[in-house]
Amino acid sequence: MVRVLGIDPGLTRCGVGVVEGVPGRPGKLIAYHVVRSEPDEDISQRLLHLDRRLAELVALHRPESVAVERVFSQHNARTVMGTAQASAVAILAGSRAGLPVQTYTPSEVKAAVTGSGTADKAQVTAMVTRLLKLDAPPRPADAADAIAIAICHIWRGGTRARIQAAALAAARRSSR
Amino acid sequence: MVRVLGIDPGLTRCGVGVVEGVPGRPGKLIAYHVVRSEPDEDISQRLLHLDRRLAELVALHRPESVAVERVFSQHNARTVMGTAQASAVAILAGSRAGLPVQTYTPSEVKAAVTGSGTADKAQVTAMVTRLLKLDAPPRPADAADAIAIAICHIWRGGTRARIQAAALAAARRSSR
Repeated sequence: MVRVLGIDPGLTRCGVGVVEGVPGRPGKLIAYHVVRSEPDEDISQRLLHLDRRLAELVALHRPESVAVERVFSQHNARTVMGTAQASAVAILAGSRAGLPVQTYTPSEVKAAVTGSGTADKAQVTAMVTRLLKLDAPPRPADAADAIAIAICHIWRGGTRARIQAAALAAARRSSR
Repeated sequence: MVRVLGIDPGLTRCGVGVVEGVPGRPGKLIAYHVVRSEPDEDISQRLLHLDRRLAELVALHRPESVAVERVFSQHNARTVMGTAQASAVAILAGSRAGLPVQTYTPSEVKAAVTGSGTADKAQVTAMVTRLLKLDAPPRPADAADAIAIAICHIWRGGTRARIQAAALAAARRSSR
């Protein structure tokens, strides 16, 4: 059982989802949050607010690792710089707390929860709701994305662990 | 007299320059540094290293304000995301210490120290060396850029202060 805090970075809305689970099983939603800041606020105050809130949420939920969605420059050029800055704050929230931080591309996250790397936001929200047996879809979509990132990390972590175990077993066999 | 810590954000090399001065006068170089991290290192470790070093330098030099060069998406797409992430860490280094943080565009910085918004790195380095009466140009260029950002902030701050003072004086005259 592992507890993961997933972050969908953004300056105006930053999604945070906390999921507990084991690879290949549905998992359990612990909590989700959206950290907001106003576009007309000073950038230094926006980043500071996000930094403080994420530090509080890490302290509150005590995850074993943090997973953050990777930002690409092919996104909307006007918002991409803010998203990149928010992603740095998100990554620091984990590493400053001494936690391992992993980043995933949007298509890795979509593929993990829906089976398709090109799924839209509605499909991701629907699958998150179904996988975690929620009564209602998490709102806004940023929260659902953050939860999907946490699920992706739990499952991918499991795959990595199985590959490592298999490699270790193979190494043991060949050294006999 | 004001002490400013200027930051030229970058993941591989982040320039830091500390300058003391008053608007319109040459100013005095207190120190300069370059914080480095390796491109093959994990992003979370690179950001954490930068975060810690900048916090140390702010604590060491006790500036009254922090000035950071603004990042634009029209730069090299491969490095711009890292630069944007480094700029978030740089801005946080100031705001977390409770200091005012100001950002300047590259052309504002160039115009402030050379008189031309399209000056090249060599011209900026030459003017920084001359303005601060240094025996040798600061190396690498990232350090010279960071020093130029600090000078820009001192001078622009002075301009702003004079504009505010003039506006205040005009308001006083008109209310008589």
